[in-house]
Amino acid sequence: MTDQRIYNFNAGPAALPLPVLEEIQASFLNFKNSGMSITEISHRSSYFDEVINDAVTRTKRLLKLDDRYHVLFIQGGASMQFAMIPMNLLSPNDTADYINTGTWSTKAIKEAQLLGKSIDVVASSEDKNFSYIPKDISFNKGAKFVHLTSNNTIKGTQFYEFPDTGGIPIIADMSSDIFSKPLDMEKFGMVYAGAQKNLGPSGTCMVIIRKDMLDSANEDLPSMLKYSTYSSKNSMYNTPPCFGIYTIDLVLKWIEEEMGGMKKIEEYNVQKADVLYDLIDASSFYSATAEKYSRSLMNVTFRLPSEKLEQDFVERATQHGLGGLKGHRSVGGCRASIYNAATMESMYALVEFMESFEKENK
Amino acid sequence: MTDQRIYNFNAGPAALPLPVLEEIQASFLNFKNSGMSITEISHRSSYFDEVINDAVTRTKRLLKLDDRYHVLFIQGGASMQFAMIPMNLLSPNDTADYINTGTWSTKAIKEAQLLGKSIDVVASSEDKNFSYIPKDISFNKGAKFVHLTSNNTIKGTQFYEFPDTGGIPIIADMSSDIFSKPLDMEKFGMVYAGAQKNLGPSGTCMVIIRKDMLDSANEDLPSMLKYSTYSSKNSMYNTPPCFGIYTIDLVLKWIEEEMGGMKKIEEYNVQKADVLYDLIDASSFYSATAEKYSRSLMNVTFRLPSEKLEQDFVERATQHGLGGLKGHRSVGGCRASIYNAATMESMYALVEFMESFEKENK
Repeated sequence: MTDQRIYNFNAGPAALPLPVLEEIQASFLNFKNSGMSITEISHRSSYFDEVINDAVTRTKRLLKLDDRYHVLFIQGGASMQFAMIPMNLLSPNDTADYINTGTWSTKAIKEAQLLGKSIDVVASSEDKNFSYIPKDISFNKGAKFVHLTSNNTIKGTQFYEFPDTGGIPIIADMSSDIFSKPLDMEKFGMVYAGAQKNLGPSGTCMVIIRKDMLDSANEDLPSMLKYSTYSSKNSMYNTPPCFGIYTIDLVLKWIEEEMGGMKKIEEYNVQKADVLYDLIDASSFYSATAEKYSRSLMNVTFRLPSEKLEQDFVERATQHGLGGLKGHRSVGGCRASIYNAATMESMYALVEFMESFEKENK
Repeated sequence: MTDQRIYNFNAGPAALPLPVLEEIQASFLNFKNSGMSITEISHRSSYFDEVINDAVTRTKRLLKLDDRYHVLFIQGGASMQFAMIPMNLLSPNDTADYINTGTWSTKAIKEAQLLGKSIDVVASSEDKNFSYIPKDISFNKGAKFVHLTSNNTIKGTQFYEFPDTGGIPIIADMSSDIFSKPLDMEKFGMVYAGAQKNLGPSGTCMVIIRKDMLDSANEDLPSMLKYSTYSSKNSMYNTPPCFGIYTIDLVLKWIEEEMGGMKKIEEYNVQKADVLYDLIDASSFYSATAEKYSRSLMNVTFRLPSEKLEQDFVERATQHGLGGLKGHRSVGGCRASIYNAATMESMYALVEFMESFEKENK
């Protein structure tokens, strides 16, 4: 950490690996000896072909994807996917099952309903303010897919195991935990993630979709809203978000070459979260908001004894160079978002601050 | 120009002003003393509020927009607008007039037709391979809007004057000439532009829309495809493409503070194009492809006596540090894209090279 940089616990856009930022900075006026910035290079050039192909190849290698999977880059964030999924994958006679675990799941459900699609909310944790992940869910046998949010950024919960759907393909919004641990894609027909948490800057959404899902998709849609437009043109039917894809490629390279791949990064993420949860569990001053066996390794949500103390905590932390600790405006409290790029050093800095704040205010 | 940078004549993504790139580079690890990169900052922070509000304010000031106009930032490029325009602005009983001046107009027409909307192509220059801008067009009295492409990147033509539509609002795709000259918005209900030519990196589309168009728009659409979602939330219903909006803001600041505003930049653009067209008009070796009174100040398209010479020309130019001179793959020939960020220095370098290439190969 340089003396000018803070410990960044933002929920998204979030911290990026410092070596990635440094590489972008160093080559910003002259990308790979092209004499141009990455932002000035044609997406039809061999320079950019190499970038996008490398990002796709690394994704497939890291997540062990076989040839059935297409890796696409689409604009509009996960929110655009909330609409594109039912538009593409639900025909008039199809139905789909949705699991509701918080704000983002609720939005995905709302968009499918807005489109007049037939969906069934088969499980919800709304009864306890979304503080847990539902278990033992019964699915509708004929459902085309099961939609879920793998990690709930706002409520601080996460699926540790994915439900047994009896073979119905799962579609998962993994915006806040993609590439944080190995992924067994066998259960999934599609996975998608807005880049701005674990992957890169905002403005690019990674979509991984299995061939059989693509093959059954509706084709009578506007070009930019059809998955086949992206899969048939390597995400370059029109000009893609080049800077975003470039940054994603560098982050994936960092995961592979600096962090040692998916298993290593999972270990690191578990260690980081443990440091924080251990302190919270041992304390009577801080309390975790999520049910213990559902809590997120990415977004650690906690409360202090009063709202006044929470305000003071966030303010004082900011003064100490610890940023982004305020909970989401819809739920209050505090939240430390500790995605892949958060370092163990930042965890120790946070824990040290939390301990001294507790002593002073108990 | 530094010794590492080339003269960049790419059609898009295209050259950006060097001072803008330098400012991004210098502050890339620490934006405005936040201790974070611009790519790591929350879009809900005061840091980003300042960026997006400054971009909107500068747009309004530069284009002299009154309070009726909303400035929005939407993802998906102009191609997404080809669908969003008819989805939002054409109800079942509405019709719209489209002018076809090339590849992009054709795509806009196709998307409206795909959606089953009632549109009429009231003029086309397809009879002469889109080498001119149609004149004396008759419009349908009840049309909801007239759609046109103000500058045709691929064919090298540009509207100098916009048609008299008898009060029907014009919707213009200005992706390749927005902010290249002053704009009289009185004729327009909406103007839009993918950023990657005159404005910033790819992945952000600027949409300027008049209140009465917004007020009459369809509301039963997916959230991310409705203009009102963007206008009611200052383009931040979900995470916007922050890096793109930031770069656009810096480009607008550069236009205002370094280049002296819209009139000055228009003068500069006219001078730059004149240098090139003067050489082409005086030469029997180079020939312009667009009709003289329709030709573009942004994309200068020209041919050499043979395809072999054109290939040699592009190759040799690249070796001389002049990049991006190959014509669009759909039409061949040569093209110099000279948007706002192209310098007079780059024009002189190109003209010098063209003169010596002509001498050697005549």
